[in-house]
Amino acid sequence: MLTIYSDTHRLHHGKAELIDGTLKPCFEMPRRADMVLGRVREVGLGDIVPPRDFGRHPLTRVHTERYVHFLEHAWQDWTASGRDYDALPLVWPVRDLRLDRVPRDIDGRLGFFSFDAGVPITAGTWQAITDSANVALTGQAAVTGGARAAFALCRPPGHHAAAEYMGGYCYLNNAAIAAQAFLDDGAGRVSILDVDYHHGNGTQSIFYHRRDVQFLSLHGDPDVEYPYFLGFADETGAGEGEGYNHNYPLPHGTAWPDYAAALDNACARIAAYGPDVLVISLGVDTFEHDPISQFRLRNADYLEIGRRIARLGRPTLFVMEGGYAVEDIGINAVNVLMGFEAG
Amino acid sequence: MLTIYSDTHRLHHGKAELIDGTLKPCFEMPRRADMVLGRVREVGLGDIVPPRDFGRHPLTRVHTERYVHFLEHAWQDWTASGRDYDALPLVWPVRDLRLDRVPRDIDGRLGFFSFDAGVPITAGTWQAITDSANVALTGQAAVTGGARAAFALCRPPGHHAAAEYMGGYCYLNNAAIAAQAFLDDGAGRVSILDVDYHHGNGTQSIFYHRRDVQFLSLHGDPDVEYPYFLGFADETGAGEGEGYNHNYPLPHGTAWPDYAAALDNACARIAAYGPDVLVISLGVDTFEHDPISQFRLRNADYLEIGRRIARLGRPTLFVMEGGYAVEDIGINAVNVLMGFEAG
Repeated sequence: MLTIYSDTHRLHHGKAELIDGTLKPCFEMPRRADMVLGRVREVGLGDIVPPRDFGRHPLTRVHTERYVHFLEHAWQDWTASGRDYDALPLVWPVRDLRLDRVPRDIDGRLGFFSFDAGVPITAGTWQAITDSANVALTGQAAVTGGARAAFALCRPPGHHAAAEYMGGYCYLNNAAIAAQAFLDDGAGRVSILDVDYHHGNGTQSIFYHRRDVQFLSLHGDPDVEYPYFLGFADETGAGEGEGYNHNYPLPHGTAWPDYAAALDNACARIAAYGPDVLVISLGVDTFEHDPISQFRLRNADYLEIGRRIARLGRPTLFVMEGGYAVEDIGINAVNVLMGFEAG
Repeated sequence: MLTIYSDTHRLHHGKAELIDGTLKPCFEMPRRADMVLGRVREVGLGDIVPPRDFGRHPLTRVHTERYVHFLEHAWQDWTASGRDYDALPLVWPVRDLRLDRVPRDIDGRLGFFSFDAGVPITAGTWQAITDSANVALTGQAAVTGGARAAFALCRPPGHHAAAEYMGGYCYLNNAAIAAQAFLDDGAGRVSILDVDYHHGNGTQSIFYHRRDVQFLSLHGDPDVEYPYFLGFADETGAGEGEGYNHNYPLPHGTAWPDYAAALDNACARIAAYGPDVLVISLGVDTFEHDPISQFRLRNADYLEIGRRIARLGRPTLFVMEGGYAVEDIGINAVNVLMGFEAG
């Protein structure tokens, strides 16, 4: 399987995120991608190529222009306001607070375009996130060009980012950008299966009113797990998109048998939908030793996830999302890909 | 003038707030109230009495029951989840994220009931915030009972707290609770004049659809100043409340002449409204040396603010809000009260 990877991700290395009532060193760090890349090489998964540059257009197919503009200029605006360290938002436009005007001040804009303080913006963030999107788009182009599958080794991840808000380590929604590119290149239907431990709220939000993209997510029950405010089973899509969104919130402690049952159900729905192409939001924070998650999957279970995805028989783009048990992230992510190859 | 004060405020001493992209020691600290109390004593403003306990009912007249319940149990729920330090939220329900269900997990509830991470919850927070509300209510009772004025030396402050969200050092909206109590005790119309440097978004939000409370706020332009998402001049009330909300967003660097002009305009509107009673949200972070604000008022200007309020000739309850230039907070707050007494 072809892997797409860019060293540019290293330019984004946030120092701290707000979690557990305090600022902790970011769980989302460059070494995550290094470990996955190392494992791809170790097992000889296939060629590793750099991304091509697809420019700004594919980003604004799923994100608003003003949001992309904000991301591009945030660091410059932040440092111009006298700070020389990572930017984090400090206040958010909830409930009856106004969304009809974007504040001029950079602190206001950071809050306007986010939903948490888990998204530090650094000097290299724009370069890293656009290259991460290019990694996904290069993989998408390979699959559109006839490859059975490709692995977009994206970093930073993307699935929490919505049309115009960042959060949860995510800035640009790589999987959504790739899914839209498949459609723009002629696909009629795309399924996105999100197996990250956390609900892919950004991806759901982007496609919630559409039927050309089916979204399915297996994740920790938001009643007790981040992102808390989306990912419940009763979110089935709206308008034209009604019936094309499927959430599988699972309790803390979920191990393989229950996970597999949910996965089988999701796969059956994908088969029934009959997509031209499949995008996998590949998070491996479902692992038993993940430091911020509460599922109990084991190394070998990831092989089985790959096999089940392979059985769907669709051209498949794997897009790297979360996974914070750094020593095992390579083994688990590549196990999915090897299971797919063998399946 | 009677001052109402409780030492209980000391039980709330948050360690850190999220500001400027990092966690800094809370600008809102017990010493603020000490300095104001010291100055009240120094100038011999009048009697200083402790609050009476008004119970839960007046709180739920402006806040939702589930929000008050959350505040009461948040520390217990937080420590039960394994943390033994101040609680802060980590993610917020913006835009299309769900508000129709309250997450079970305490981290989810902290986000559900807040709009920033400037509201640490500590072991003593519930006691301090309910006593702060009692301070306001005791002052309200004194004014209802015939006093020309009273000074509720509230801490924590309240004006950023809305019906069911906390933020900006504020948990229970003391001024709103007192205003509602005036109405419940027979007043027909109450004006709330908010002279804190920051827009009183919580107070505005609580009364936005009502005409029995007129709300006026002079503050740093939210286009460039916290809370960013409310406090613009075009917010004039809605429904029955249309025409009863008046915002005066003022630019960074505003000094007395421009401030006085806005204040005169607000006073004219109050006079035209003809309230039975006046509540002043008394923040003094408009001071030239305030560490987080950008106006240029001087010590003597606060005397003048008090004189102008006195000229309205209404029974008046002063409710302490912000002010972070700790060495001067007592002088400035008490100058307003002395100006009022002399006016």
